[in-house]
Amino acid sequence: MNNQFFVKMAFDNWNAKVKDLDKLLSILTDEQLMSDVAPGRNSGYYLLGHLTAVNDHMLPLLGFGEQQFPQLNELFIRIPDKSKPQTVSASDLRNYWNASNANLNEHFSKMQPEDWFSKHTSVTEEDFAKEPHRNKLNIIISRATHLAYHTGQMALLKK
Amino acid sequence: MNNQFFVKMAFDNWNAKVKDLDKLLSILTDEQLMSDVAPGRNSGYYLLGHLTAVNDHMLPLLGFGEQQFPQLNELFIRIPDKSKPQTVSASDLRNYWNASNANLNEHFSKMQPEDWFSKHTSVTEEDFAKEPHRNKLNIIISRATHLAYHTGQMALLKK
Repeated sequence: MNNQFFVKMAFDNWNAKVKDLDKLLSILTDEQLMSDVAPGRNSGYYLLGHLTAVNDHMLPLLGFGEQQFPQLNELFIRIPDKSKPQTVSASDLRNYWNASNANLNEHFSKMQPEDWFSKHTSVTEEDFAKEPHRNKLNIIISRATHLAYHTGQMALLKK
Repeated sequence: MNNQFFVKMAFDNWNAKVKDLDKLLSILTDEQLMSDVAPGRNSGYYLLGHLTAVNDHMLPLLGFGEQQFPQLNELFIRIPDKSKPQTVSASDLRNYWNASNANLNEHFSKMQPEDWFSKHTSVTEEDFAKEPHRNKLNIIISRATHLAYHTGQMALLKK
């Protein structure tokens, strides 16, 4: 088994999860998206903002550059849902989600299989020497489960 | 990067997701577990049965042997929630979940890194020759996102 196949395995899984959420978003109305996934819990809107912010944060984490939507960090990561007026529309948020994936995909397409086994920017050289599994591809693997976790919740918004 | 590291990356993610659900189960009462994750949706009980049945089905899929709890297939995969009286108690279901993980872990511990890159039992030799990423480790990667998807739903049962 070579690096290329392992990268494909991790990316097939990541891409399938992005596709699952895209499909769900295509059938949810904005009104459904603004609803809470369960009484008193996060709204679909908040979770989409959260996933977009986490996606966007992968840009610096993978060494691709600055965040495209840094304003989302405060709204959808640092503070919980319902604690602040919604200053981004559901429609804008859908666009940001799509843009964050397009942006990531552009960077992903330029990577060589072996690049994925280099360290991400949140691990020190010393730690990486001891723990080489803390590489860029590991970010994709763990982000896929994070995405699936919240997609499972957002799926409850379907009629 | 060698096979051993690939396997570690995939298993660190899988084990973390099992641990997440174990932690959630340790704080949910049976009464909470029996509740629906959102109004009119699956109960936590059904989702735990579903995850246990899917876990158990990994035994034949990975070539480890027969299912340990084949009775769960009918109750938690083939038929939807609420369509049949509950014939397994929440307490038994918690035990089955733990037993399925213990059973899987015993088999996992006997695998050599390269074994994970052999074909699983649902892919033909012909297809595997063309698509070598359809291997046993790929099952672990995709099951981890499946587990996370439903754990996200079950997390809504927390007070």
